[in-house]
Amino acid sequence: TSHAGRCTGHQVCLLSVLHMFVQEGERDFDLASIYVSDAQYNRNIYFDTSPQAVRLYLRYNHWLPQVLLYVFILVDLSLALFEEPAVFALPTWATMLVELLCLIVFTIRLIHYAKVIPRDKFWKDPKNICIIVILGLTMVDMIIYGALKASNCRAVRWSRVLRPLLLVNVTEGRQLRRAFRSIRNALPQIFYVFLLFMFSLLIFSLMALKLLGKRGLKTIDGAPYFTNYLEIVFDLYVLVTTANSPDVMMPAYNASTGFAIFFILYILINTYIFMSVFLAVVYNNYKKYLKEEVRQLVRAKRHKMVRAFAVLQEQREEGGEPVVSQANWNQLVRLVQPDLSNAHRELLWSVSDDTNQGKVAFVQLADLLNIEVITLKSRPHPLQGVCPAFYLSAPSRLLCQLVQHRAFVIVYDLIILVNAVFIGLDEENPLISNSEWVFLALYLLEILLKLYVFEPRAFFSRHSFWNWFDTIIVVAALIATIINSAMKSSGDYTSRQILDIVFILRVLRLIRVVDSIKRFRTIINTLIRIGPAILTFGQLIIVVYYIFAMVGMEIFKGKVKFYEADSSDPAKAYCGNPSLKGTPFAQLNYCKNNFNDVVSSFVLLVELTVVNQCSGFTLVTHVSARIYFPPFITIIVTIRPQLHIFVAFVLEAFFVEYSVEKSDLQTSLEKKIEELELAVAQYLEDNLVNAMETIDSDQGTGQSANSKPGLMFKIASKRYRTVDALLQRMFEADLDPEDFAETDDPAAPTSGNFSNPAFSSA
Amino acid sequence: TSHAGRCTGHQVCLLSVLHMFVQEGERDFDLASIYVSDAQYNRNIYFDTSPQAVRLYLRYNHWLPQVLLYVFILVDLSLALFEEPAVFALPTWATMLVELLCLIVFTIRLIHYAKVIPRDKFWKDPKNICIIVILGLTMVDMIIYGALKASNCRAVRWSRVLRPLLLVNVTEGRQLRRAFRSIRNALPQIFYVFLLFMFSLLIFSLMALKLLGKRGLKTIDGAPYFTNYLEIVFDLYVLVTTANSPDVMMPAYNASTGFAIFFILYILINTYIFMSVFLAVVYNNYKKYLKEEVRQLVRAKRHKMVRAFAVLQEQREEGGEPVVSQANWNQLVRLVQPDLSNAHRELLWSVSDDTNQGKVAFVQLADLLNIEVITLKSRPHPLQGVCPAFYLSAPSRLLCQLVQHRAFVIVYDLIILVNAVFIGLDEENPLISNSEWVFLALYLLEILLKLYVFEPRAFFSRHSFWNWFDTIIVVAALIATIINSAMKSSGDYTSRQILDIVFILRVLRLIRVVDSIKRFRTIINTLIRIGPAILTFGQLIIVVYYIFAMVGMEIFKGKVKFYEADSSDPAKAYCGNPSLKGTPFAQLNYCKNNFNDVVSSFVLLVELTVVNQCSGFTLVTHVSARIYFPPFITIIVTIRPQLHIFVAFVLEAFFVEYSVEKSDLQTSLEKKIEELELAVAQYLEDNLVNAMETIDSDQGTGQSANSKPGLMFKIASKRYRTVDALLQRMFEADLDPEDFAETDDPAAPTSGNFSNPAFSSA
Repeated sequence: TSHAGRCTGHQVCLLSVLHMFVQEGERDFDLASIYVSDAQYNRNIYFDTSPQAVRLYLRYNHWLPQVLLYVFILVDLSLALFEEPAVFALPTWATMLVELLCLIVFTIRLIHYAKVIPRDKFWKDPKNICIIVILGLTMVDMIIYGALKASNCRAVRWSRVLRPLLLVNVTEGRQLRRAFRSIRNALPQIFYVFLLFMFSLLIFSLMALKLLGKRGLKTIDGAPYFTNYLEIVFDLYVLVTTANSPDVMMPAYNASTGFAIFFILYILINTYIFMSVFLAVVYNNYKKYLKEEVRQLVRAKRHKMVRAFAVLQEQREEGGEPVVSQANWNQLVRLVQPDLSNAHRELLWSVSDDTNQGKVAFVQLADLLNIEVITLKSRPHPLQGVCPAFYLSAPSRLLCQLVQHRAFVIVYDLIILVNAVFIGLDEENPLISNSEWVFLALYLLEILLKLYVFEPRAFFSRHSFWNWFDTIIVVAALIATIINSAMKSSGDYTSRQILDIVFILRVLRLIRVVDSIKRFRTIINTLIRIGPAILTFGQLIIVVYYIFAMVGMEIFKGKVKFYEADSSDPAKAYCGNPSLKGTPFAQLNYCKNNFNDVVSSFVLLVELTVVNQCSGFTLVTHVSARIYFPPFITIIVTIRPQLHIFVAFVLEAFFVEYSVEKSDLQTSLEKKIEELELAVAQYLEDNLVNAMETIDSDQGTGQSANSKPGLMFKIASKRYRTVDALLQRMFEADLDPEDFAETDDPAAPTSGNFSNPAFSSA
Repeated sequence: TSHAGRCTGHQVCLLSVLHMFVQEGERDFDLASIYVSDAQYNRNIYFDTSPQAVRLYLRYNHWLPQVLLYVFILVDLSLALFEEPAVFALPTWATMLVELLCLIVFTIRLIHYAKVIPRDKFWKDPKNICIIVILGLTMVDMIIYGALKASNCRAVRWSRVLRPLLLVNVTEGRQLRRAFRSIRNALPQIFYVFLLFMFSLLIFSLMALKLLGKRGLKTIDGAPYFTNYLEIVFDLYVLVTTANSPDVMMPAYNASTGFAIFFILYILINTYIFMSVFLAVVYNNYKKYLKEEVRQLVRAKRHKMVRAFAVLQEQREEGGEPVVSQANWNQLVRLVQPDLSNAHRELLWSVSDDTNQGKVAFVQLADLLNIEVITLKSRPHPLQGVCPAFYLSAPSRLLCQLVQHRAFVIVYDLIILVNAVFIGLDEENPLISNSEWVFLALYLLEILLKLYVFEPRAFFSRHSFWNWFDTIIVVAALIATIINSAMKSSGDYTSRQILDIVFILRVLRLIRVVDSIKRFRTIINTLIRIGPAILTFGQLIIVVYYIFAMVGMEIFKGKVKFYEADSSDPAKAYCGNPSLKGTPFAQLNYCKNNFNDVVSSFVLLVELTVVNQCSGFTLVTHVSARIYFPPFITIIVTIRPQLHIFVAFVLEAFFVEYSVEKSDLQTSLEKKIEELELAVAQYLEDNLVNAMETIDSDQGTGQSANSKPGLMFKIASKRYRTVDALLQRMFEADLDPEDFAETDDPAAPTSGNFSNPAFSSA
């Protein structure tokens, strides 16, 4: 509008104003689509609303730069494989060059971000400061390291510890930041339970010292039993994790049966009661904070949708409620989600329009877009088009009926079971090894038959997990088996790797059986659905592991050496460390549990997470200047609550998934689908997502479904596009109605410059 | 009324009718009080409503026969200590005589029960049939055993397995039966997850066999690694429990780093994902069934209260709502709960009367009685009565203020910490050992000072857990220390047992510190409060252990022998069983883990529950005809879900305890208390139950609280008299309003003979 004042010539001015309107219109749609997509994916970015910034922001949110960013983060993280101490050694200059490239990419991404949001907001956001500090420190470290290396000094790449923090601080790391925040918020409560647990541990240790210390008992190794207070504390700490359970108690138990009461009481209180309390407190707190976060997210989402509405609203009649016209709505949805089919979009519009509430319906759009609706197209089989006479002939139809029959599934389940037995048998037997070809042929035949019966595009639709699984496994097994036998017959040489792959593929094929039993399918599908949510915790664990692995490698590399089985080096018996001579660590052949490269470190950290049993490793502690110990304990203490939370999360997610209720929005969408008579027949509903072929067959063969409309919808009722949608669903019952209500928040002006919720900063 | 027709003389008839009315009135009150108390304690017994049966039923519910019954059950169960294989051997005739006595007691109790309820109901109840069968079988077994013993044949007391079933089947074992029912109901769901887990285990084992079996790897003992399918399955099963975690993986990991991926994937899927799913399913199911049971309990409770109302109701005015008069109400409550103070009863009446709804208010009575209200009486200190001039003098008042000051607590906390250090130091030092007297004196002084300041009856009130704890521990320590030093000085002889007790008491004293930190106090109080609920699960575990211990003893007694440390028998090295020669079981000195008596069996079963590590014990399995194995696995598989449920229960109970909301009933009671200005001042509310002394001091010293009324009430808001009340509270939010609603169920006639809910039978 500021433009309009400046034009002088009438014609020129009109053109300019028209052009401006078109531009303004485009700009409006861009802005509205950004609001909607931010609401859909719960992005809370305080972006500039100037046209340039909006354009840049659209580009910033494009999938390509986001994927590229993650690729470069992955490259940066995996550099640890090639740097000293390396798994695959590369020259220093090569890794430094790659790292420099990564740094440049991160800097470009950051500059892009800086251009999108207002300058003062950029510098107030701790995320950005964090990234700048990480980039700066890494550069400094690289220069120092390069200089020291050039002058042949010992140098430490300490900035590698900072790398995983990038995962947390990039704008896309919202879920991860939220997970970290939840943990941080739960810490004070956990801390008190932990203190009480420690107090109980110390009291029990003191009692053990007084009761057992003076009796002159010996452990199985002949060492004095329970005479040193700190060692008792450690032994009893390990006992909580039940790792040394019968052993630590045996000397006392052998001395007197009564002492068993002491240990049983200890285990009862500290393992069962305290660990339960600990889990309960962690779970409770975690849930509470997550609920608060979700509440804020829902509120922010509503604000953004109201803003988008404000940009596109029209006054249909004087004094009436403002509305968004269908044309504008269509254009907006097309911008936000270009891959949405026309039919799906029309369905959404009819749901939105039906409620006839203007803004209220519009605000729901973000949630509507997050509901996954499966569009089923009843297409004829391509063979029917090519050669209808043959495809619709009686034998062909009989074949189709056979393949669709329940018996077909049962026969193939039996074949899989027989195959399992054959796999278990000795494959040296030529009969057995040749039978593999028979099974491969049978599996291939199954896939070809199904492709003959079902429409190929439906067979390989995005939701047909098991069809994809089958085909990939069978084809891969076929290729691997052919390569393997070709190598065998050509030069008597069998590659171990190829054979391993063949074996793995063979065994993986057996998993198919699971799909035939409905109860199993339910469990597996639930697991697949909560997969993305679990991935967030995977990232969290990786961040923690990576940091500890880097620190561990710098401190402990080369302290424990692993010798190959055929090595005759006498140092092999004590892992190359004389101070380990005769210790169980060396005797149990734990030498490969070391910090000599990043892979070994990760495996070791996993082991420490899984087994509480430091007992093996602490023996190293005693000898190697007791310096191994603190980081190990720190790791365990840090990671354990996270695992508990992980368990709790899976638990909670399962409850939600198992619960039968659907959200109101889904129900209204389903109602609409039913109203329009587009719903898939009820009897197919249960196994639709899971066994798509059944439905496709009904339509694809064109025999029974001719009376149905050509297009059908089905809500994949419990599938959520984003983790946030799942979370929102989880806490829906607990949210205040006002979080969803249509009353305008007085604190939120309808102009573009709305205040960002406080929680968006990490 | 049938009596009235029979009298002929006028005078005689009047007397007879009067007498009858009095009898009828008494009978009515008895009946109503039974209904109310059955509702209060959720007893669902279909008793006869004839006057004799009601009298008998009142006696049946008296606390004395109930306590006696449990004493005799305990005696019956503990007979295992004295029977072959015995901990303390007694002649067979003695144990048989005691058992006969127990059987007679159980029979008398059963006959009593049979007289209370109608004959047909008695014979339809599986509980009673169970008890009769158990008693009959035990008699038969005793006779056979006696006969065989007399003829010197080998005999087995197989009926001992049935003993713990008495705990489940007596009428008082309602909670236990409910726990068993919940587990049984959850089994089908668990079963499917378990099947899927087994499938995953078998698939992974097959993959391990194919990948690792042919590589010729050796375990640390030199045995072939992963060549036998069944052994792989077992190893991987144990790996799920993380008991053999680094060891089972090391040979493969040493051969190639890549195999670590296999094991990490395995642990991730089977330990973390599957165990989480398992826990989630168990928890979810358990909760669901428990909720249904609680719903039925609430409904049954309401029916009983309606029946009680029907017995006592009066028509106050023509056509008006029937009501229960205050006099009748008072008499009823006095009958139901004789220990209730008059003031408390008046408070309850004013709450009931206030709502002015007749039946609705009356129906709440059972719940009202279950709310614990603490009555505080502001009594002057007895010394004030005896010698007011001295007690109210300035120095005495200063002392009172000092003791009540926060610094007093801090000083004593510091003393406790110093004491802890002294206990940790070597007590051979005379300075240290004499310091014990100083500490004892200080603790005694503390108790005496508090008794001086606070009213003794308030100090030792029922809710002052820590005051009781302190006094008992200090007095016991004083007595034990005096005995110990007396023995030492008299004959140079120190009893190890006395010294142990002294040490334990000394260390226990330190626990006091916990009470000073508010957060700790919260956690501990929560644990104390959910104690009764946990006890139910303790009973359940004991039933299971007892049965397995009995079976285990009969099968395995004497197979593994334990030799004292000073024994020189060569058989000591292999636990007296040549087939154990050289096995880790013997090498690790596990000989005392055997089934040779009931105590050892229990310890062994606890060990097996705690550690998943059968590895030690299965080595015995391999040699002793592989007969140890099945029962062990059965135990573990049976007990594990129960532990999970236990954890889940503690978790759930904690959430309820931590939640701030109160039930509606409590709120109305509290409102009434506040209305009557009887509430304890707000600032004292938090620590009232926990630190009663603070309040008592305010009143007891008579300095600051003179303006307050002489009697105050406080709802111990989160304390429940019965586990059922806690459960009802837990699921309150989920219960249908109709479960509480006042609409009369058409299926429930208002006569005394109401149908028993189906769930009351085990």
